[in-house]
Formats: sequence, C-alpha cells, structure tokens
Amino acid sequence: MKERVFTANLALPDSGLVKLTWGNVSEIDRDAGVIVIKPSGIPYSKMKICDMVVTNLNGDLLEAGLKPSSDLATHIELYKAFKEINSVVHTHSKHAVMWAQSGREIPAYGTTHADTFYGGIPCTRQLTSEEVTSAYELETGKVIIETFKEKSIDPLAVPGVLVYGHGPFTWGETPQKAVENSVVLDEVAEMACMTEMVNKTVQPIPQYLLDKHYFRKHGISAYYGQV
Amino acid sequence: MKERVFTANLALPDSGLVKLTWGNVSEIDRDAGVIVIKPSGIPYSKMKICDMVVTNLNGDLLEAGLKPSSDLATHIELYKAFKEINSVVHTHSKHAVMWAQSGREIPAYGTTHADTFYGGIPCTRQLTSEEVTSAYELETGKVIIETFKEKSIDPLAVPGVLVYGHGPFTWGETPQKAVENSVVLDEVAEMACMTEMVNKTVQPIPQYLLDKHYFRKHGISAYYGQV
Amino acid sequence: MKERVFTANLALPDSGLVKLTWGNVSEIDRDAGVIVIKPSGIPYSKMKICDMVVTNLNGDLLEAGLKPSSDLATHIELYKAFKEINSVVHTHSKHAVMWAQSGREIPAYGTTHADTFYGGIPCTRQLTSEEVTSAYELETGKVIIETFKEKSIDPLAVPGVLVYGHGPFTWGETPQKAVENSVVLDEVAEMACMTEMVNKTVQPIPQYLLDKHYFRKHGISAYYGQV
Amino acid sequence: MKERVFTANLALPDSGLVKLTWGNVSEIDRDAGVIVIKPSGIPYSKMKICDMVVTNLNGDLLEAGLKPSSDLATHIELYKAFKEINSVVHTHSKHAVMWAQSGREIPAYGTTHADTFYGGIPCTRQLTSEEVTSAYELETGKVIIETFKEKSIDPLAVPGVLVYGHGPFTWGETPQKAVENSVVLDEVAEMACMTEMVNKTVQPIPQYLLDKHYFRKHGISAYYGQV
Repeated sequence: MKERVFTANLALPDSGLVKLTWGNVSEIDRDAGVIVIKPSGIPYSKMKICDMVVTNLNGDLLEAGLKPSSDLATHIELYKAFKEINSVVHTHSKHAVMWAQSGREIPAYGTTHADTFYGGIPCTRQLTSEEVTSAYELETGKVIIETFKEKSIDPLAVPGVLVYGHGPFTWGETPQKAVENSVVLDEVAEMACMTEMVNKTVQPIPQYLLDKHYFRKHGISAYYGQV
Repeated sequence: MKERVFTANLALPDSGLVKLTWGNVSEIDRDAGVIVIKPSGIPYSKMKICDMVVTNLNGDLLEAGLKPSSDLATHIELYKAFKEINSVVHTHSKHAVMWAQSGREIPAYGTTHADTFYGGIPCTRQLTSEEVTSAYELETGKVIIETFKEKSIDPLAVPGVLVYGHGPFTWGETPQKAVENSVVLDEVAEMACMTEMVNKTVQPIPQYLLDKHYFRKHGISAYYGQV
Repeated sequence: MKERVFTANLALPDSGLVKLTWGNVSEIDRDAGVIVIKPSGIPYSKMKICDMVVTNLNGDLLEAGLKPSSDLATHIELYKAFKEINSVVHTHSKHAVMWAQSGREIPAYGTTHADTFYGGIPCTRQLTSEEVTSAYELETGKVIIETFKEKSIDPLAVPGVLVYGHGPFTWGETPQKAVENSVVLDEVAEMACMTEMVNKTVQPIPQYLLDKHYFRKHGISAYYGQV
Repeated sequence: MKERVFTANLALPDSGLVKLTWGNVSEIDRDAGVIVIKPSGIPYSKMKICDMVVTNLNGDLLEAGLKPSSDLATHIELYKAFKEINSVVHTHSKHAVMWAQSGREIPAYGTTHADTFYGGIPCTRQLTSEEVTSAYELETGKVIIETFKEKSIDPLAVPGVLVYGHGPFTWGETPQKAVENSVVLDEVAEMACMTEMVNKTVQPIPQYLLDKHYFRKHGISAYYGQV
C-alpha cells in the first residue's frame, strides 16, 4: 500500500501536474482503518517508499516517522463522507487552479470532459474567516462535501472539485484512478478556457451527449475498454 | 500492417497529441477487405504489436483477441465514403478539441495551414439526440461525410475535420501521413486561436496564396520535397 | 560557495526559466564580504564551476577571471538594502516578463501565490532617462528598494519583484530558495494571467486566507513541512 | 561549412522551433560565391551532413545531390541585399507565425526584445496575386527588402522579419547567431501577445531604454559578455 501511494505521488510531477512539493496522494484501507499519505514538504526527488506516513482516521500517526501532508484533514473528511472512494489527490495544477481562482465551475464543453466527469466540475464557495482561522484543512473538506450535497452531485460521477481560491481535489477507487482524474481535470480545464477564447458564447454540450459519453465508459452499459 | 498501425498509434502520445488512452489509428487494406485498429482502452505504454485488432468492413473480428477501439464504426464509415484514404486517426489533441468544442471551422489564416489543408477545416453540426442514442459512432462518421458533401469539400484536399463538441479526425494515404495531418491540425488550431487574440479582425489568406502553398506541395505541379 | 552558485545557475535553464544566457544567480558571504556570481554572457552548457566570478561589495574582482554578470550592480544594491537575504536571482522567465512588460503588480489570486508571497508581487515604476543612461544596473537596484519602501513591503515576506519593462528579480536565504522563488513567481504569473481570462472581474483572495497560507509555511506558527 | 549548416538546421527542432520538415537554415561563403542549404522536405531525423545542398548565387546546384529547400530563392535575395549577413533561417515557429498571420509588427515591449532587436520586428505587406503566381519565393525576398527600405530599418539592428500570412525569417553573421535570433523572435512574440492580454493599452518601452539594452550588447560601447 505504501508502494502504491508512493508511485501515485511520483506520478504527479511526472505528468506535469505539480512543481516543487505542491501535491499529495493518499489511500485508505477501510477495513483496517488505515490511511497512507505523502509526508509534508518533502521534495519528490528525495522521497522514499518508507517515507510514506501511516495514520488512522483521526489523523493519529500509527508509526514513528515523518509528519503527514498538512492537507491530511481534508482527505479524512472526504473519506468519511464519500464511502466508495479509496484515494484522494490534491494538486496545484495550473489550469485547474486558474478556474479555482476564478471561482467558476468548469462547464462540460465536450466529450473529453464527459468521458470522466458527468457534468460541470463544481467550485466551492469561499471559506469564511472563521472557517479558515479555526480548522482550515478540516473545513476545506467540509465545504467540498457541502458543495456536492447542495448541488446533489454524486461524487463518483463527478470525481473532482475546485476549492475556491485554492485548487483541485480529485478522488477515485484507486490511487492510479484518482491521479488520472487529476490529469483529466487539468486537461479539460485548459480546453474549457481556450474554448471560451475561441467562442465567447459557447454552451455546454447537450445532456444526451453527456449521457452517451459518460455511460459509454461507466456503469453497467459501458462498452469502452476491455472487459 | 499491424506493425505500421502499432507504430502510428505510438506516434500519438510521442507527438503530444494524446493523453491516457485517448486516440486511435487504423489502416485499411482495401484489396483484402481488412482493417487493423488499436484495441479499446489499452494504455499506450503497455500496448504490443500483437494487440492490434483485425476486422472486416462490417467491424467483425477476424482474429480472436481484444475488442477494437469503440470508434471503429466511425473509421469504417469514412473508409466507405472516402475511397482514396487508407488510414484514419482520431485524437483529443487540445487545440483541435478547443475548436471542436467551439463549434467553429478553423479558418486558413496562413501558409502553415495551406501547406496541408486546402481551405478551412470544417466543423460538423451537432449530432441530434436520436443520432447519439441510436448508433453514435456510426452517426459520427455519417455527419462527417455529410459535412464534406454539403460544403463540397474534397476529403483529400482537406484531410481532417472537427466533430462538434468532440474532437478531430484526420486521414491520409498511409498511417504516417494521417498522423502527420493530426499534428498539423493541432498546430494550426493553436496558431489560429492565438492569431485571433493578436488581431481580432483577422481574415483568411487570399485564395491565390492558398492555391500557391497547397499546390506547391500537392498535385502534378508540386515542387516541394524530393522527387 | 562557487559550487552552490554554479548549481543554482544551472537550475535556471533546467527549470525552464531561462533561454540562451538570460539569467543569473549570485550569493553573498556577508562575514567575508564576498559575492559569487555567474560570468557575463557565458552559455549555461559550457559554464564550469571555476568560471564563477568572485567580487567584493564594490563589485571589484577578487580573482583573475571572467567578467561578472552585467547585472552585478543590481545584486549588490539589493544585498546592501535587504540585510537578511543571501542570494539574488534574475531571469527573463516569460510569464513574469509578461507582467513586468505590462507594468502591473501580480495580484494574490490564490493560495499558490500566498504560500510564497505574502501579498501582490509589486512592479517598479519606469526608470527615467537619466537613471537609464547614468548607472543603469545600479539604478535598477535602487528602484526596487524604493518600491518596497514606498509600499512598506517586507522583502522577506514578498521575496520578488518585477522591474518595469524588464523582468523579475527574486531573492532568498540561500541560492536554492531564491531559485525556487523564481519558479513560483513565474508559475503564479501564468496562473494570474489565465485567471483573468476566465473571470474578468476576479478579486485577490481575502486577507485571512492570505494570512493562513503564508503563516502555515512561514514564521513561528508554521506547521507545513518537517521540523 | 556543410557541418555548420547541418548542425544549425538540427538546432531548429531541438529548440522547439520547427515541427515535421518546416524550416531551413542556409549559409553563404561570399568569397567563394557558394551557398549551403537544407534539402527540401527531408525529415530532420533522417538528414545527414552530406545531404546539405551546395549552390551558387543563381541557385544552380554545384554538386549532384538533393533538391535545395524551396525557399532558396528567398535566401538568395536576402544575401544579395543585406551584405553583412552570412546566414538565413526560416521557420514556422508558432508565436512568430501568429504575429505574421495577424499582419502586425511585434512592438518592443521590453528589454528581452531590445537585447536583440533594436525596435519593432516588422511585418511585410501582403504579396499581390501577381507576385505569388509569378516567382513566389523570389518575391518573398523582395518584399522583405522593400519593408526594410521603406521603414529605413537596418537589417543588422533588426535581424528578423515576419512575412505576412506566412512566418518569420531571421539572419545573422553565422548560422548559430541566425538560429539564436529565431529563438529570441519566437520568445518575444509569445511575451508580446501575453503582455497585451494582461494590459490592453501597453505601450512600447521608451527609446532610451531600447538604446540602453541594445547598445549594452551591440556596437563599440557594448559591455555585455566576455571580450
């Protein structure tokens, strides 16, 4: 499990999603009640498998070692609320950040988006001063969950979010899938921005095309890929 | 032939045109009535020559093996309608997708465009709900053909198209040529977008310059390259 | 010390911040009164450790050897005015230059910015004709210092600046840190530009979020990274 | 000389300036009356030193071998008119093309530009139908020369140009210098475009700053670099 988390963390700089130490991947073993996450502030080039930090769902260290990513509390909130996910990824990938800083949802402008995200990728509201100064990382998790509840979005159908003024979080059944969702999120973020440059009145694709592409790849009627 | 298709498929991620599993190349042997195409949903890094899928023009598998790309039906439609082409490429390359999502034809703003595409690169109309829910990939092929017929465009002179809300397809006499056309399409898509940023009232190049550059490289008066 | 400066200089092209010979890193040993800086106009690929130039705080060569970077006088001014910094970096990285050419401060649009820069990254005024024709590089240093004084900005809290019509300078306690600040400056410069494209009325993040992110990483209450 | 031209040609794809076969470098030996230029349409990856084509100033082949670049006639015109240059480079680098397609001069928005180009980089007028259909490549050279004459620009002080609707040509005393000028041209083209995005009313830098930076690197008062 440490190796899987380590590999997924290294995939972030390799895919161009993170610079310096900006980003982290965690995985949960729900049966064992154990989370493995990247240590805080360690450069990717120097990170070793054994540096991965092991905690329980309260964020307590289960092994002597490095401090976990400062975003751990956000990951834990997401694991508690979204029962089917087993991995969470956070990056500052530039195109996703651009939308987060704009405070805008990324509209589903095409099938590249629809293949992975069943609808717009939401942006949370701004955190309040109280939320930021009390338990910032915990509240970041809460505002994500609030966003999905208020908009009645299924976190499996839209496996990512933009935190206002901050950046993206994505998730998935496995670390590899969660990282892939970060790759797609950044790609569709860039495409959406450029689409608006070329056509200032562009509209999201129709629901039937969104349905077609999403369900071509997901659910019981999926026929994309090998069985 | 499998090797040629395999090599052309690998050229897609190598040239930066595709991420993850987004993209596929096929080739047809018209005499043998055989199509070779990328398998569906296989990562490029793990794909082997023997994974290439062999079908007939009805899309029936001619060998036991993997499932073909889900876009096979689109490729087949194009082979049936455009008799002189022997290879079809589909990607989600970001600048071509940006124009496809915008629903706009890419105007011929310069000679880089004219060297490969004899005029604007058209964008299809939006598919209807009926077309999407019945035989989506087949209808995608049909709407491409419809676009070329309605605008009286020769598919050899303009070897590529944008499918509305989706992305580009290109083609050519060989897989290598079809992939090159995808490279050029994405490049001129990016250039065209930036050109409109720098000059908001830019017009396509005059017909005589389009003629000059296109026919410098194509047809019986061509004098570019070695004989 | 030469090796550290050499390594930091090489990090500039490696991180994509400089092309050709555009950029330089220096370090000061305040006790010894010695500055080590890149030689002027030497290609990075041919530069050797022993090419690093050693001067005193008047810019006099302390060893026979190559001429120092023409920007040395700017570095010296900064070392004299900003007592806690030990390294200065200058680049022409494209996104920072874009803002410098625009004559605009980079607003703090998000937490990626706030993690390193505690507020907007200022842009100096235009140098006058007299300043440019008399002692250009010295005056460049002076206008940076003037900018920080007039706006009451702490150079440790905002470890970088844009020189109007020219480009960025950053600094730090070590060459590695100063180079990192150049990396972050260019990244947030690009993000800020794109953010304005996606949301034309975007505002900087609230002060409490700026406080939270900056002090999460800096000062006595910092809890990011390992102790 | 063949090796120098070969190396300079290879530098084009290596520096990201050309894709496929788009681009060419030539060098002239004025005493011998000999030009060496890239062959037409040969992929860079397969090109060998011995493939370089040798012609006289009428464009006649002096050795049996491959056909020269179709742009040879443009190069020859430039060599005849601009007596101090010994190398010409043509690319379709994307940011320079973007400005050429826009039909706009690249304004000198900063010192990165001023270090190499002493003023705006001009764009030619559109070629007429007669010019394009008669002797296109020759007329391309003529319209460049006309542009420099009409605007009274010294081709050594502004070692590059945009051909309307086409792309950039640069030149220099050596192939290496001419290629460097292509690198700088594309970089400042990108910076200028982004500068206008961030500040829609940006003005070129004042003449005194242009003077300072240009003459810091060029002419008898230059003090940049080693002697």
